[in-house]
Amino acid sequence: MQNESLPKILIFVKSIQIMKIGILGGGQLGRMLLQAAANFDVTTYVLENDANCPAAHLCHHFTLGNIQEYDAVYNFGKNLDALTIEIEAVNVAALEQLEKEGVKVYPTPSAIRTIKNKVLQKQFYKDNEIPTAPFLITEQATDVLAHIHFLPAVHKTGEGGYDGKGVQIINTEKEIALAFNVPSVLEKKVKIDKEIALIVGMNAKGDTVIYPPAEMIFDTVYNLLDYQLSPAIMEEKQLWKAQAIARKVVKGLNSPGLFAIEMFIDNAGEIWVNETAPRVHNSGHHTIEANYCSQYEMLLRILLDYPLGNTDAILPSAIVNIVGGEGSTGNVFYSGLAEVLQMENVFVHIYGKKQTKPGRKMGHVTIMSNDYQELKHQANKIKHTLKAISK
Amino acid sequence: MQNESLPKILIFVKSIQIMKIGILGGGQLGRMLLQAAANFDVTTYVLENDANCPAAHLCHHFTLGNIQEYDAVYNFGKNLDALTIEIEAVNVAALEQLEKEGVKVYPTPSAIRTIKNKVLQKQFYKDNEIPTAPFLITEQATDVLAHIHFLPAVHKTGEGGYDGKGVQIINTEKEIALAFNVPSVLEKKVKIDKEIALIVGMNAKGDTVIYPPAEMIFDTVYNLLDYQLSPAIMEEKQLWKAQAIARKVVKGLNSPGLFAIEMFIDNAGEIWVNETAPRVHNSGHHTIEANYCSQYEMLLRILLDYPLGNTDAILPSAIVNIVGGEGSTGNVFYSGLAEVLQMENVFVHIYGKKQTKPGRKMGHVTIMSNDYQELKHQANKIKHTLKAISK
Repeated sequence: MQNESLPKILIFVKSIQIMKIGILGGGQLGRMLLQAAANFDVTTYVLENDANCPAAHLCHHFTLGNIQEYDAVYNFGKNLDALTIEIEAVNVAALEQLEKEGVKVYPTPSAIRTIKNKVLQKQFYKDNEIPTAPFLITEQATDVLAHIHFLPAVHKTGEGGYDGKGVQIINTEKEIALAFNVPSVLEKKVKIDKEIALIVGMNAKGDTVIYPPAEMIFDTVYNLLDYQLSPAIMEEKQLWKAQAIARKVVKGLNSPGLFAIEMFIDNAGEIWVNETAPRVHNSGHHTIEANYCSQYEMLLRILLDYPLGNTDAILPSAIVNIVGGEGSTGNVFYSGLAEVLQMENVFVHIYGKKQTKPGRKMGHVTIMSNDYQELKHQANKIKHTLKAISK
Repeated sequence: MQNESLPKILIFVKSIQIMKIGILGGGQLGRMLLQAAANFDVTTYVLENDANCPAAHLCHHFTLGNIQEYDAVYNFGKNLDALTIEIEAVNVAALEQLEKEGVKVYPTPSAIRTIKNKVLQKQFYKDNEIPTAPFLITEQATDVLAHIHFLPAVHKTGEGGYDGKGVQIINTEKEIALAFNVPSVLEKKVKIDKEIALIVGMNAKGDTVIYPPAEMIFDTVYNLLDYQLSPAIMEEKQLWKAQAIARKVVKGLNSPGLFAIEMFIDNAGEIWVNETAPRVHNSGHHTIEANYCSQYEMLLRILLDYPLGNTDAILPSAIVNIVGGEGSTGNVFYSGLAEVLQMENVFVHIYGKKQTKPGRKMGHVTIMSNDYQELKHQANKIKHTLKAISK
């Protein structure tokens, strides 16, 4: 099998078998995707407008540019084999053009377009008979006034919402001044008993895999995400139902890629889709250590047209997010890090962001144990020990 | 805790808390070390004379240069906080100078000097009463002739041996022509029953941690490493003895860092140290997925002066190395990769080397299972399925 005598052209054909994969966005999700990519023979590209972003130093080729600009995205993607995203706020028109020209874009531009606008996303659920909280579409703030009977509700802007921005709870007529004056969704407030997320991978042939559900545990005082447990403890029938819904979302979007479907379970045990992310997701960080194939490797397998991986958990796990502390802005310092690193069953991930600010995602800690009580105990301990602050 | 009003100098002091860590060598061990480094807030540097080496794209700052040249190593290291190696063949004099100037060099230049020369390494074992096969030192090939009574023996050159090079078995007087004509060790051949490796981490305070032992399983026909199992199944007393010996090696070297101690167990159950690597090691690849703290993260913790990690296994595991197939030289193709990716409990690592050649380490696969029979079965299946070839 010596190939020293092969003609040059054949050698060239072989060398391009190494796929060029681009990521739009260079945050922590891109960073972890690139950590996983280093397990495969693939050349990686990142587009982001910050040369010090968490993913910049882990790719083969970094391009400084705005992922929301047509030319930046088109020029970045035109020589690549496949493209993916780590955030939805990208230029979809450029992706559509790239798709036409034969670049694999997973998720498809069409799926991104549907999901990134909350009006279209809600309409998609309705059209596909996917259970979601009842909603109305409002064009301007005064439209909410015409639907007082619909309160209490959650008002969400169609475009531009992210990490809590563009979302407003309107309980009564008194709060109507808080309504958004841009095209938005007015969604009936669900009495949430439980909040779960399911991650689904779909390859180009339409085969799907689904991860065990994750349950978000909230701080009842501040209503902030406290920690996450996976696999969530659910009745088997309810789990089947949630899985069927999650698959229906992805089949409806009709797009290869990796998707996180966030769901509410209400007091009556009904399941409602809250929203979908067409990408690797915070609710799947634990899969790096706690599942056979991580969500990051799964997306790469799909982009590379490799067989889908095994979503099974190795052990149950919890995730604690390290978010920038209130009142702390500036160069980051991780107080309590040494104490957490001494814990026996934890995995620390620091995203390498230089600056902290209140609420900014700076890292996460995964805990693994067969004992759910221990997971909860450790999660609480970490939450009270490890802080991203400026000193 | 707002720091916006802090004087500039304080902000500067904080920003240099992010440690600059350099690695001499950019092969697969450097690659995996950098994958682990992306879990921490650290700035990474690599020195290697191949811009396409496996680690080049995963560091913050890549320097093209020869790790065996004084100036290249000195200039690379002089502005760093800490330095480590992924191969012993480095310029030790430059490291000694850097150590004098206050750069943390783990392992210490003195430990590297002892280990990289097999004559010094064997003498070190003898001086420290560490059990190792009886040996003689030869200056030239004819010295072997003066010690015919010592055969069968293994002749190892003092300098330059690596991956089987510089090692020659001399069974009888008839094979004496194979002897090396440079300063070498002539080591009595041990009747090996088992070959194990123990990985030890030691921090600057002298605290040590030790990983469960790994057992190398050899192909009895070709005497090539077939696969590795960890934790090796050993009698408790024998394990204690092996652990005590491994710790004695590291305490004797008196160097912070991570060390792999390879040992033989002979037919009589005696343990003999074969050799020590003062760095992350092939026998510890499985720790990435199968242990709470991987060998790579452990070395980083030591360099960063973080608490030592937990060496416990999450599940037993096996490693199969993907080495370049016989008679195959050229652009690499991984035959059987899709089949292996379909296996439920395996983790594939491809090192991204463009060219394969016989015996070259191209990647590895880790298997995890509670069932040792399954580990062996899967290891054999992978060995016969996945090949690095040129097409």
